Amino acid sequence: MTSLGFPAPASTAACERADAARNREHLLVTARAIVDEVGVDALTMDGLARAAGLGKGTIFRRFGSRAGLLHDLLNDSELQFQHGFLSGPAPLGPGADPVDRLVAFGRERLRLVTVQGDILRSVESESALRYAAPAHAASAMHVQMLLGQAGVDGDLQVLTLTMLSSLDAALVLFETRDLQIDLDRLADAWEDLVRRVTRG
Amino acid sequence: MTSLGFPAPASTAACERADAARNREHLLVTARAIVDEVGVDALTMDGLARAAGLGKGTIFRRFGSRAGLLHDLLNDSELQFQHGFLSGPAPLGPGADPVDRLVAFGRERLRLVTVQGDILRSVESESALRYAAPAHAASAMHVQMLLGQAGVDGDLQVLTLTMLSSLDAALVLFETRDLQIDLDRLADAWEDLVRRVTRG
Repeated sequence: MTSLGFPAPASTAACERADAARNREHLLVTARAIVDEVGVDALTMDGLARAAGLGKGTIFRRFGSRAGLLHDLLNDSELQFQHGFLSGPAPLGPGADPVDRLVAFGRERLRLVTVQGDILRSVESESALRYAAPAHAASAMHVQMLLGQAGVDGDLQVLTLTMLSSLDAALVLFETRDLQIDLDRLADAWEDLVRRVTRG
Repeated sequence: MTSLGFPAPASTAACERADAARNREHLLVTARAIVDEVGVDALTMDGLARAAGLGKGTIFRRFGSRAGLLHDLLNDSELQFQHGFLSGPAPLGPGADPVDRLVAFGRERLRLVTVQGDILRSVESESALRYAAPAHAASAMHVQMLLGQAGVDGDLQVLTLTMLSSLDAALVLFETRDLQIDLDRLADAWEDLVRRVTRG
């Protein structure tokens, strides 16, 4: 392979693995750029191959299908988001007041949904899977823990699911696109909800 | 037509309209009984025709398709629900304290979702339509009005959408079926949410 700075695979397995990882990263970055520029509906395997300077076969071997590519794109940002709230800098990460962490959690999630809501919605189409997904479970565990640390009593499991449902991609896209409610208003409303729920 | 008490159409248009209305009502009642007994997935146009003692052609002329039948089934109960909160007896209907009306609204909605959640979910599959549906808009107007009457300040439009998202069929079915949270717990959690949001 000579195009766009991808060296030909070296002879050792370690090099091949490193190449594959770079390759995958390059494809995800390129795919994300396409989505940002023209929207998720316009992201095709052909277009990605052209933009990345790779063969279409390589793309299919890497992701299996367009659905697999979307899944990997989403998985990547969910992992970044999880890393942020589990071990990133405060107030999203550890070390801040639990109420401030809850506020930061919702604000960051809303930002993520507005940036890549279309990908989220594409993958979320199977509604039963939406709530059962590992990413949703990780967020739920985190929010429920913070509610407990903030001293909220009551049915924290259901309260957590209620609060998370307000950050759902389909709802947030309806609010921002159909109702023209901007991101700042949604973020302020999330903060208001957190304060109502956590005040003694 | 001689089967199951459906008289042959009389000669006047008025009688035909009355027959058609009775016919439709009979079909919806029968369809609902089938759903209650064996679930929405087992509801077929053939099965409905047999159970109602009518020809399959009549069923298709009436509803167009299975999707049309589900839509009519849902529409029917949404209208009943709307009638209940707009002009039914208190505390769901007018005349009670706004906080009590909010509590009753959620409890009744949760009951409705657990009774016919599968139909709701079948129709809700197009997520963008879910929030834009007239039934959702009517509920949103009602909840926002009650929050205002209860003296809640803040962004009532977004707060209303957040509260309604906790009553969403897909979420409630996930809570009751996957997480085994029973209806009483969900109803109590709704009441708890209403009280947290409305306390001064």
